[in-house]
Amino acid sequence: MKKLLFLILSIGVFFSCDNNSKEAADLLVINAKIYTVDEEFSTAEAVAIKDGKFLAVGTSEELQEKYDATEVVDAAGKTILPGLIDAHAHFYGQGMNLQAVDLTETKSFEEVVSRIVEFQKQKNSEFIIGRGWDQNDWEVKEFPVKDTLDALFPDTPVAITRIDGHALLANQAALDAAGITPNTPAEGGEIEVKDGKLTGILVDNPMALVENAVPATSTKDQITALLDAQKEVFQYGLTTINDAGLDRQVIQLIDSLQQAGALDVRIYAMISNTKDNLDYFLDKEPLKTDKLNVRSVKFYADGALGSRGAALKQPYSDKHDHFGALLSSVAEFKETAARIAASPYQMNTHAIGDSANVVVLKTYDSLLADAGDRRWKVEHSQVIDEEDFKYFSKNIIPSVQPTHATSDMYWAQDRLGPEREKGAYAYKQLLDQAGIIALGTDFPVEKVSPFLTFYAAVIRKDTKDYPEGGYMPEQALSREEALRGMTIWAAYSNFEEDEKGSIEPGKFADFVILDKDLMEVPEAEIPEMKANATYLGGKKVFSAQ
Amino acid sequence: MKKLLFLILSIGVFFSCDNNSKEAADLLVINAKIYTVDEEFSTAEAVAIKDGKFLAVGTSEELQEKYDATEVVDAAGKTILPGLIDAHAHFYGQGMNLQAVDLTETKSFEEVVSRIVEFQKQKNSEFIIGRGWDQNDWEVKEFPVKDTLDALFPDTPVAITRIDGHALLANQAALDAAGITPNTPAEGGEIEVKDGKLTGILVDNPMALVENAVPATSTKDQITALLDAQKEVFQYGLTTINDAGLDRQVIQLIDSLQQAGALDVRIYAMISNTKDNLDYFLDKEPLKTDKLNVRSVKFYADGALGSRGAALKQPYSDKHDHFGALLSSVAEFKETAARIAASPYQMNTHAIGDSANVVVLKTYDSLLADAGDRRWKVEHSQVIDEEDFKYFSKNIIPSVQPTHATSDMYWAQDRLGPEREKGAYAYKQLLDQAGIIALGTDFPVEKVSPFLTFYAAVIRKDTKDYPEGGYMPEQALSREEALRGMTIWAAYSNFEEDEKGSIEPGKFADFVILDKDLMEVPEAEIPEMKANATYLGGKKVFSAQ
Repeated sequence: MKKLLFLILSIGVFFSCDNNSKEAADLLVINAKIYTVDEEFSTAEAVAIKDGKFLAVGTSEELQEKYDATEVVDAAGKTILPGLIDAHAHFYGQGMNLQAVDLTETKSFEEVVSRIVEFQKQKNSEFIIGRGWDQNDWEVKEFPVKDTLDALFPDTPVAITRIDGHALLANQAALDAAGITPNTPAEGGEIEVKDGKLTGILVDNPMALVENAVPATSTKDQITALLDAQKEVFQYGLTTINDAGLDRQVIQLIDSLQQAGALDVRIYAMISNTKDNLDYFLDKEPLKTDKLNVRSVKFYADGALGSRGAALKQPYSDKHDHFGALLSSVAEFKETAARIAASPYQMNTHAIGDSANVVVLKTYDSLLADAGDRRWKVEHSQVIDEEDFKYFSKNIIPSVQPTHATSDMYWAQDRLGPEREKGAYAYKQLLDQAGIIALGTDFPVEKVSPFLTFYAAVIRKDTKDYPEGGYMPEQALSREEALRGMTIWAAYSNFEEDEKGSIEPGKFADFVILDKDLMEVPEAEIPEMKANATYLGGKKVFSAQ
Repeated sequence: MKKLLFLILSIGVFFSCDNNSKEAADLLVINAKIYTVDEEFSTAEAVAIKDGKFLAVGTSEELQEKYDATEVVDAAGKTILPGLIDAHAHFYGQGMNLQAVDLTETKSFEEVVSRIVEFQKQKNSEFIIGRGWDQNDWEVKEFPVKDTLDALFPDTPVAITRIDGHALLANQAALDAAGITPNTPAEGGEIEVKDGKLTGILVDNPMALVENAVPATSTKDQITALLDAQKEVFQYGLTTINDAGLDRQVIQLIDSLQQAGALDVRIYAMISNTKDNLDYFLDKEPLKTDKLNVRSVKFYADGALGSRGAALKQPYSDKHDHFGALLSSVAEFKETAARIAASPYQMNTHAIGDSANVVVLKTYDSLLADAGDRRWKVEHSQVIDEEDFKYFSKNIIPSVQPTHATSDMYWAQDRLGPEREKGAYAYKQLLDQAGIIALGTDFPVEKVSPFLTFYAAVIRKDTKDYPEGGYMPEQALSREEALRGMTIWAAYSNFEEDEKGSIEPGKFADFVILDKDLMEVPEAEIPEMKANATYLGGKKVFSAQ
């Protein structure tokens, strides 16, 4: 017994004997206008944070009275929102895109070269890739030649693809890496030669020779991509991204980096629908950490409306007898859905056309009728037949991207005709029916900024202030609804409403400080907004200063 | 052209205009006794290091004359060796073991409790696991009871297993987690109850109830394991570990952590022989980074000698008509070997008994006859029939663990008889035949220290100074041979001799500083040696101070 007592004493007394009656906090943010996005959409002045979570929400006076904080931030009247969630994006894809030079909207070949030089200063890439030039936008409307790139990059391969993907300019180092000479045969395309010399222009098939010479993506490249994407999303106050389709290897890389403290952003990762991925994940309990949530499968029901790949019930209005198509048979879709229904996972299906949507909605409806709280999602929910809205609910959730509406509005009526268009991008109707709507961007298809999402959802205009009065303004969401869609409703759609999506005690201390009050700022100022500071788990991960 | 010139100027001039005639280095280590382990086994005084690699080796005066280093370390006469390589260990397994309390060789239950308390102070584990107690070693030779553990850990489950794995002591929190009450039926074992109360002792089958209540291993747990193992190996100057069998997920985790800068140690990872692993890796180019080398498959031909699982040509000397057994058929082994031979991978096969060894050696020999430089390894090469030594070469490499000899010597002759024993642990003969031998430990089966490996290889005694004159002293290696086996030969066996294994310009700046000269220190002082400091890629990763 003596020994036992000794042991008990030797493990020490861990509680503090400080007589200070205030409670300890790590961070106190005061003098803010905080939209808590709680049930009542109430506002507050101050929050206390401890161990990465919100401890209390109240007035500045109350919280200063009650808490003794290691750090106090005076927000000087700035606005605070819960950390924003992008309910549908391609986070890893965005990161990979950032490893190539963006050459879209260049006004001259000089600008192309200048962007490449700027990129390489940052990246020091061993093989420079670029995409998006279009000589039709230049004063000299001719294919460029490689000479300048040879002078600037004598030893580093450079390969830049035209916007349509059918032509590529390679410098000599890239041609050498690909083993291309003026005598290389060019089947199914062209290797441009002038005066017996390569110009660097390759058209169609021969482009593959250069593409195959690009080094394979290493883990280090993947990590760089993830960190670059993280840097970008934090600038906009995003703290959780739903990645709409990842393979096992990338998911495990993200988990590893997060757990090692090398990646901060929270990811809700949808599993790409491959046999390998499903076999690996579906028999297991979903992978859930504070930073990563793997509990859903991404499925593609159809293609896109712009390219007329979306599956419609009636023919396209601008293409005779063309209906688009489902990407797999209804039987296959149902089989996969049934397999997922038998697992603990959600199914998140890309559905654009009204035909694809009704297949998805009816299948969900029959599988989930007696399956409890499953929250399966219809990603895009883009064109819905009037009679099919009824299937949406808090268990069959619309997940939409408002900037798609303002990007597509220029030609959507061509594809659909005025009657069908009424059920397209119909966010207000979806919300009224489901009682919930999750908002995202689909970046890199659209830009990353959630403020563009907010603007498109509420104002229904694009950044050219078009159209006057907004596109189908009856489908606009209120500012409150849009903010809920980017926070608590997105969290709910992820089964994460108990840990994020609002500023309430016990939830992760993810929040964004804004210079302007998103709920009251004049509409014209919304699109350019960025975060003043972004906090994730109580830690500042971005500061505009 | 003006624009081009502008661009060229704008990318800047990157070379320095410093007139200092000395070359830049990151680190200069002077006044050392450096065993370079180059071809001539030459020594030097100083090394210069830049960008993680050795730049030059020479006298202190020469290198100080020639290099201007950011940091200069005066080794004050200490000894330097190349970073040590363990050619056969279980690095991840060791790390996982470190997540449990080691209760082996405890002298009382009080010591058991004390070790648990000490462990928990460091680890703050949510479910404490321990292994290795044996009440026969205690004064009171009775099964312990849970009361002390209940008092010390009222809320944290504790489950500690007896050394034979057939009994377990659980505290009340662990019993609660397992749902065990005094009325729980105990089929195929026992749930000890005294005076109507659980004592905490479970025997055999009911142990599974507690084991199943232990939380699953998370990525965070895995990372902790890897970092704990790294910390341990760096204390001994080990900079590369060959992990003898890892699954894809752990290999990718290691790669991720290394590339993110969260794990430093270099790993040569043998792929565990499962269908999933082979399907995933074998069709790909081997994964090779500065820190990770995945280019081999681990196969188990037979079991262990101690438990009489090793496959012998003739019956065990201490078990009538018992030969041990191969773990798979010869046909299966050959099929796997042929598949690996058709890939760029090495095959590293565990072979203990002379029968297993001859199957492996003949298969290797026939597959590799015209296959060029493949360096397949025989892991353990433990008992070799006199007529089979001839198969070993620089293409069929013996990879052995000298401490196995001094651990097994107490009963090896019982198993094998005096004649067969002559071909067992016959390291000198293996070296003479192959011209190379790779040395390792097989930790956690043996202790981590490479100095114990060195001692066992050279002195052929265990740490009890037994036996006088050494075990089969004719099989002792010279100190130089043992050091080569732990450095350059191990590197060669990994296809890494161009980047590590000796201190020569261009190789990774991996080295260990020792307080004693391993080549000349009195033999009795060898077993307790540790590193004074360990450097990996020119960065100090361990310091004894």
